[in-house]
Amino acid sequence: MPEKTNIGNFFEDFELGQEIVHATPRTLTEGDVALYTSLYGTRFALNSSDALASDLGLPGAPIDDLLVFHTVFGKTVPDISLNAVANLGYARGVFGVPVYPGDTLSAQSEVIGLKENSNGEAGVVYVRSTGQNQDGEVVLDYVRWVMVRKRSSDAPARKPTIPELPGAVDVVDLVAPFLSNPERYTAEISGSPHFWGDYQCGERIDHVDGMTIEEAEHMIATRLYQNTAKVHFNQYEQQAGRFGKRLIYGGHIVSLARALSFNGLANAFKIAAINGGAHTNPTFGGDTIYAWSEILEKFEIPGCEDFGALRVRTVASKDHPCGTFPDKDSDGKPLSSVVLDFDYTVLMIRR
Amino acid sequence: MPEKTNIGNFFEDFELGQEIVHATPRTLTEGDVALYTSLYGTRFALNSSDALASDLGLPGAPIDDLLVFHTVFGKTVPDISLNAVANLGYARGVFGVPVYPGDTLSAQSEVIGLKENSNGEAGVVYVRSTGQNQDGEVVLDYVRWVMVRKRSSDAPARKPTIPELPGAVDVVDLVAPFLSNPERYTAEISGSPHFWGDYQCGERIDHVDGMTIEEAEHMIATRLYQNTAKVHFNQYEQQAGRFGKRLIYGGHIVSLARALSFNGLANAFKIAAINGGAHTNPTFGGDTIYAWSEILEKFEIPGCEDFGALRVRTVASKDHPCGTFPDKDSDGKPLSSVVLDFDYTVLMIRR
Amino acid sequence: MPEKTNIGNFFEDFELGQEIVHATPRTLTEGDVALYTSLYGTRFALNSSDALASDLGLPGAPIDDLLVFHTVFGKTVPDISLNAVANLGYARGVFGVPVYPGDTLSAQSEVIGLKENSNGEAGVVYVRSTGQNQDGEVVLDYVRWVMVRKRSSDAPARKPTIPELPGAVDVVDLVAPFLSNPERYTAEISGSPHFWGDYQCGERIDHVDGMTIEEAEHMIATRLYQNTAKVHFNQYEQQAGRFGKRLIYGGHIVSLARALSFNGLANAFKIAAINGGAHTNPTFGGDTIYAWSEILEKFEIPGCEDFGALRVRTVASKDHPCGTFPDKDSDGKPLSSVVLDFDYTVLMIRR
Repeated sequence: MPEKTNIGNFFEDFELGQEIVHATPRTLTEGDVALYTSLYGTRFALNSSDALASDLGLPGAPIDDLLVFHTVFGKTVPDISLNAVANLGYARGVFGVPVYPGDTLSAQSEVIGLKENSNGEAGVVYVRSTGQNQDGEVVLDYVRWVMVRKRSSDAPARKPTIPELPGAVDVVDLVAPFLSNPERYTAEISGSPHFWGDYQCGERIDHVDGMTIEEAEHMIATRLYQNTAKVHFNQYEQQAGRFGKRLIYGGHIVSLARALSFNGLANAFKIAAINGGAHTNPTFGGDTIYAWSEILEKFEIPGCEDFGALRVRTVASKDHPCGTFPDKDSDGKPLSSVVLDFDYTVLMIRR
Repeated sequence: MPEKTNIGNFFEDFELGQEIVHATPRTLTEGDVALYTSLYGTRFALNSSDALASDLGLPGAPIDDLLVFHTVFGKTVPDISLNAVANLGYARGVFGVPVYPGDTLSAQSEVIGLKENSNGEAGVVYVRSTGQNQDGEVVLDYVRWVMVRKRSSDAPARKPTIPELPGAVDVVDLVAPFLSNPERYTAEISGSPHFWGDYQCGERIDHVDGMTIEEAEHMIATRLYQNTAKVHFNQYEQQAGRFGKRLIYGGHIVSLARALSFNGLANAFKIAAINGGAHTNPTFGGDTIYAWSEILEKFEIPGCEDFGALRVRTVASKDHPCGTFPDKDSDGKPLSSVVLDFDYTVLMIRR
Repeated sequence: MPEKTNIGNFFEDFELGQEIVHATPRTLTEGDVALYTSLYGTRFALNSSDALASDLGLPGAPIDDLLVFHTVFGKTVPDISLNAVANLGYARGVFGVPVYPGDTLSAQSEVIGLKENSNGEAGVVYVRSTGQNQDGEVVLDYVRWVMVRKRSSDAPARKPTIPELPGAVDVVDLVAPFLSNPERYTAEISGSPHFWGDYQCGERIDHVDGMTIEEAEHMIATRLYQNTAKVHFNQYEQQAGRFGKRLIYGGHIVSLARALSFNGLANAFKIAAINGGAHTNPTFGGDTIYAWSEILEKFEIPGCEDFGALRVRTVASKDHPCGTFPDKDSDGKPLSSVVLDFDYTVLMIRR
């Protein structure tokens, strides 16, 4: 009689080159979109309005890129990070074809790196995860690395392999949508007169607003993504743990920061790439999240006159307004109030 | 390099006759409808059942009038009331064509009145806001007035202009739906045998039930409406404020009171007009909302034999059951437990 | 002037053989499905993916059987259990045709048993409730019994009638779906390699994970089902009651336990029957729910080679991990941490 429950993979269970097909394909619907709006208050016009999307030549309002990210990420959790100690980083994340309500997403991962900790208790697993729609088209392709416990500290150490990862996604790898009537995307509709030409490298923007997170909210969000990581849901167990409370899924903070960034980056209508990111400190129910952004790079997209790209670094803080751009201490270590350091590339209409 | 964040308009920024197009058109979907049901527990049959709506000759279940109201209201916030001290009142609110899932709503406002406070710190702005669907048909047209801070108390006072507003929407301005088979709307389906003919002017109804509000609930609702008013979301900032806690969006109480009013007004299948309304006291997470109603007027609708109109005043209270119809003190001031005084016109089948 | 509010039926109001048509038909949508996922984190593949459902020959992903149950149950509350002291049990629950987004459910009940308590204060009402879709097809047919207060303890006692109820739904009464391509349902898609042949009678499975319930979550769920039982929503009133807090709707625990059971029963793709069930102890906001299951019976379905049935007993506990299978004390009484004892029949692919 086989053991029926999934206890997840431990560091020893991963092999370089291993391919894992993740369970539970998920159809995203207008219901998921409404919940996403209600959890973050996002207001980017293209994701909000079928009428605008249709005017621009799209079949309907595309689903928020981060809802796609969370859905694909959630699928990987039971296989990759059920025994994770920490989610360490992201790289080379490229969003592919847009996702519309009714599309069914599935995910698979390839193990591309393994590095055991010197203490023999855990190791870092690098996976390249790919999300596809029902037609096999790639909707997201990204790398993350995560520290996973070993089943046994006696298991022999393996030769480390660390993949080479780019600092940022190359412009030629970005997938830009085709908008047949970009002139119909206006400042009145989007809520901001600031377009691609108005931003400069090095510019910093305080997104001003703060949003307090309730326990019910982050759990509703994380379950929506079918993310099963235990630390987010079980107060009975967590009260005996390191923090005494439930940890909030790091992706929840990414979405909150992105929604807050509307106030200053309202025309960043699409995330095209995730270059990197770190959850620099944990967040908990009751924390109030603020955010600020820095324009890291500004570049044209070859063959595209309608919009350009901005590489943006968005930093989120807890219980710390961002008028002073909280960041790192004199040793280069993130301040204890800084909870997210996210490096991504957005598309913005040129005007 | 222009400042990128929206800090909202101050009293000085408004001009009489000014027209403002609000950002972020919003497609309402079945997802929004499900969330609305889950947040208030509303049970009005016509909004609940596509099958009933179809039997009555409609293309599907129309979206709850108050969800339409909140969506249009939410669009106006970034331009009108981001720097509001208080939302003071409503008048001449008329619901137009019904809204169905898939419709995209956008909003614009005209400044129709301005009156500076005597202390020079703020002023009252009167706006007429209009919500339209993707075909340009009006779905809602209403006036609200709101006290907005001045940017500088040194700014010179302006000549006050106060619009003339009716005490109630005139019956000829009501937009009544056409039901091809009104006889298929039955007491069994709606849950109440009390139709238009059973109500009398002056009648008072205790809606009996009470509903406690959690912080997560009012924030999820208010974000669903893309309403960005800061006081609802940021506990870190509010704890240093006047109340020490987040204020609940007044419209959340309107929707709760309307949902509670089902028990006594189940056949009031549509709100046709908002005649007036005041948020008489603030509400906070943890408050339990009760409601009672008074029938102010009862009138026929010219040319319509299928249903009549009731002008209703619904009063909501917090932590105060409504068996004794809590209202005003001997000076005519609302009791401290009374949080809403809402004057509106509903349609009800005649039988 | 008739009294307009519904105060619900008391024990004296029920008559043997009485038929009650419940109000408010309800169209279930993709919005409801998304909320259901977000509230419980359910991951059963067939309910999650339109693409899989289509591969299997269905028109789309069927709606979770328990969402159907809660919707039908919710409709019965205003007529059956508004004055309930306790919901005592379920029997002979059979799920009929599958429900898809867009279907409108309505419900009716027949009183099939009445038994007054010896103290004359209340009595047990047995009802057979039936949910139908817009075409009149039965989607659910079940019996529940509930203790209902008497309006007056002076009312004369009536002759008791207790219906005969089966211990379990007979296999010939189960409604099995037709899957045209059952081989396309794979372990990779469902997330578990354990199919019908791998389970044995008497086998017990600890579902491992725990989920803490927030007040906002159970209220959002219960309102989604338009369930109006007062004890779930009104903290102001409940603080003076027996427990000092809001009671969680028992069905919320059923859904949580079912979602947790994915870890061990991932291929139990459909609930075909509810044989019985008891809410053995109350649950409250803040409780963490765990679950374990026992395979009670394993049987083939006549004429069906694609899948078999398992009769399962799932026990849920609060603040009590289920590695030791918490159950009953030496007197056969449920432990105080055991909150649900649910007996149901699931379908599982044979392989």
